[in-house]
Amino acid sequence: MQDIIKIGYKDKIEDFILKIRDKIPLFICILGNTETAKIPGISAAGANSEITDYTPAADMEYILYNECRCIEGIPLTPNGIPTPAIITKAVLDLSDIPFLIGIGGINVYPNAPYIKFGGKGGNNISNGNAVDNPIEIFENARIFGNSISKLTDYIVVGESIAGGTTTALGVLTAMGYNAMNKISSSLKINPIKLKKKIINEGFKKKNLIKGDLKNKPFKAIEFFGDPMQPALLGLIIGVAKEKPVLLAGGTQMTAILALIKSINSEILKNIAIGTTRWILSDKESDIKGIIDQINPKIPILGANLNFSGMNYDGLKAYEQGAVKEGVGAGGIVVSSILSKINQLNIKKIQKKINNNYHNLIKKLL
Amino acid sequence: MQDIIKIGYKDKIEDFILKIRDKIPLFICILGNTETAKIPGISAAGANSEITDYTPAADMEYILYNECRCIEGIPLTPNGIPTPAIITKAVLDLSDIPFLIGIGGINVYPNAPYIKFGGKGGNNISNGNAVDNPIEIFENARIFGNSISKLTDYIVVGESIAGGTTTALGVLTAMGYNAMNKISSSLKINPIKLKKKIINEGFKKKNLIKGDLKNKPFKAIEFFGDPMQPALLGLIIGVAKEKPVLLAGGTQMTAILALIKSINSEILKNIAIGTTRWILSDKESDIKGIIDQINPKIPILGANLNFSGMNYDGLKAYEQGAVKEGVGAGGIVVSSILSKINQLNIKKIQKKINNNYHNLIKKLL
Repeated sequence: MQDIIKIGYKDKIEDFILKIRDKIPLFICILGNTETAKIPGISAAGANSEITDYTPAADMEYILYNECRCIEGIPLTPNGIPTPAIITKAVLDLSDIPFLIGIGGINVYPNAPYIKFGGKGGNNISNGNAVDNPIEIFENARIFGNSISKLTDYIVVGESIAGGTTTALGVLTAMGYNAMNKISSSLKINPIKLKKKIINEGFKKKNLIKGDLKNKPFKAIEFFGDPMQPALLGLIIGVAKEKPVLLAGGTQMTAILALIKSINSEILKNIAIGTTRWILSDKESDIKGIIDQINPKIPILGANLNFSGMNYDGLKAYEQGAVKEGVGAGGIVVSSILSKINQLNIKKIQKKINNNYHNLIKKLL
Repeated sequence: MQDIIKIGYKDKIEDFILKIRDKIPLFICILGNTETAKIPGISAAGANSEITDYTPAADMEYILYNECRCIEGIPLTPNGIPTPAIITKAVLDLSDIPFLIGIGGINVYPNAPYIKFGGKGGNNISNGNAVDNPIEIFENARIFGNSISKLTDYIVVGESIAGGTTTALGVLTAMGYNAMNKISSSLKINPIKLKKKIINEGFKKKNLIKGDLKNKPFKAIEFFGDPMQPALLGLIIGVAKEKPVLLAGGTQMTAILALIKSINSEILKNIAIGTTRWILSDKESDIKGIIDQINPKIPILGANLNFSGMNYDGLKAYEQGAVKEGVGAGGIVVSSILSKINQLNIKKIQKKINNNYHNLIKKLL
C-alpha cells in the first residue's frame, strides 16, 4: 500500500514531487476566527459554539507545549476525538521541519510567537460583511512571503479556523464555482443545508447571485470569506513565484486556489494540494470536482492515513468521518515522507499519533 | 582603507568571519518603545518626545515602502538628519538579504507584517517598573529563534527603540557593570548626567544599588530595561546554539551581551558585535570598555562608513556625532560586504545612501 495517494495528471504530479523531494520545507499555519463558526450546527471544531474562538490558539499551544494554555483541559471533543493537530504535532515531533504561526485574524491569541498581518476576527458571512480589510492582510502576507521565500526550499501552508468550509463555500459560490454539494465538513454528517442557507442570506443582503464576483477576489473575501483566506493568499502569492507551495488542507483550500487563479493564474503551476485520505474518500464532498473547475492540472497528494488499527476509539472516529483534516495535517505528513531526511513513513507517524493520544488521555486520569 | 574595522582578539575575529563569510544572513529588526524616551532631552530619535513612539514603525515603513505610513512626512529630523534606517535600507535595496520585523513591545505598530512575542510598550525606568512580562517575551522569542535557526546560515539582529541607550545603562548598572561614562547617545552631546539621574531615581524606588541584580537578568529588564531587550535576548538564545549571530548595534547591545552571559555564557562564542565607525571612534562612549568587562573575546566588526564626502549636510552631520547607529545599520553593512554575493563595498553602499537621501528630500520640494 502506498503512503501517498496521487490524484491528477501523472506528469504534473511527478514534476511537483521532483521539486520538493528530499527537501525540508518551512511549515506555516495560518489561524483565523469567523463568527460564522458560532452558528449552531456548523462546525465540529470545538465542543460548543463560543469555544471555536479558542480552537486555533489551543491547536498551536498543543503543538508547541503538549498542552493548551489559553483553555483548561486538553484538545479533545467531549467524545474524546482529538484535534487534527495531533497528526501535525506527531510529524513535527519526529522531524526537523521548522514551524511558524501566522495570524489571519483571530479573537483569541496563542501564548506563542506569531506573525501578524493586520487582520482581526471575521464576521458572520450571513450578513455579507465577513472581513473588513482583506487587501491590507493580503499585502502584509505577500511582503512576508517574499522575505520568507529566500529562506526555504519550499513551504507547506495549513490553516486552523472553525467554520472554514462554510466561508470557503461562500467565496467559491460568489466566484461562480459549483461547490454546493462538493465542500467537506468536520462533522460526520455534513450540514450542507445549513451552509446553503447561511450563504444565501449573505448573497441576499448584498443583492448578489452566484458568479457575480468572478473577477473580484477581494470582494468575495470581504463579503463571504474569512480572515485566514487573504493571509494564506498573500503568503502563497509572495512565495510561489520563487518556490513551490504545498497547500495543506481539504476542500476549503479550493477557495484559495480559486482566489489565486483570479489574481495570478500563472503561479498555480507551482502549487499542489496536500491532504488526507479521509478527504479524498469522503462521499459527502468532492475536492477533485472543485479543483477540476479551477485547473485540473493541480496535483493532489493525499496522506494515506488509516486509523482503523489505532488503540483508541477517539482516533478510530476519524475512520467514521469525524474531523478528516485541518492544521495542515495531510500536507505535513506528505511533505515529511517525501523529504526522506527523517526517514518517516505512515506507519511511524501513526505510531507516534497513537502515543501522543495516549499521553493526552493519561492527563485525564 | 579597510571597509571593515576589526577590534578584539585576532583569532576570534577571523574565526567568526570564517563562519559567516560568503553567506547570506536573515536580518531581523526588533522594535520597542519606552516611556523613558519621552523624558525631555534623552533621545534624538524623533523631533519631539511624543513622536518617539512612532520612530520604530516609521523606520520599518521607510525601509519597506520608501515612505512612512504611520506618520506624515519623511524620516528626517527638522535639521534634515536622516534616520540610520537610510543605511539599512541602502543595503537591503542592494542585496538579497531577507528582512523580518519583530516586536519587542511598542505603542505604534508599523503597517507591515511583523512577529509578535507578547510584549507591549515599556514604562519609564525612573519608576523602577520598566517591562511587565520579560520572561514571556523572552520565551516566545526563544521559540521563534529556534524555528528560524533552521532556515538560515546566520542572523543579523538590530533594534529600533528611542531611549535604548538609557535602558541599556539601567540594565548594565543593575548587573554591576561600569558603564556610566561608556554608553553612547544618538545626540551630539551625550546627556549622561540626565541618564544617571533617571537611573538613580529608579534604583532608589527599588531600594537597590549597582550590581544587586548581577545574577537576575530578568529582574534587571523588568525594573530598568525595555521590551526590545527580552525579545532580542530570546531570539539570540534560540538561534546562537545552532547558528552564528551578528548583534548589530552600538553600546546598547552590550546590555544584551551582559544578559546573555548571565543566562548562557557558553553561546557568547557564537556572537559578534557589528557596528559603525562612528560608535568605535566616539570620544564620549567606550563600547570596547564595556565589552571587556563582559568577555574581551567577543569580536567587534565596524562598518567603516564615512559621510564627510556626501553631497548633503543632513548626511555629513553623522560625521559631527549625530545618530551614529541604529536599525542594525553597522552590522548589516558589515554582513553584506562579507557575504560577497552582491559584491558590495562601502563605496557602493555610500553611493546608494546618497541617492536614497536625494530621493527623500526631493519629496520635500
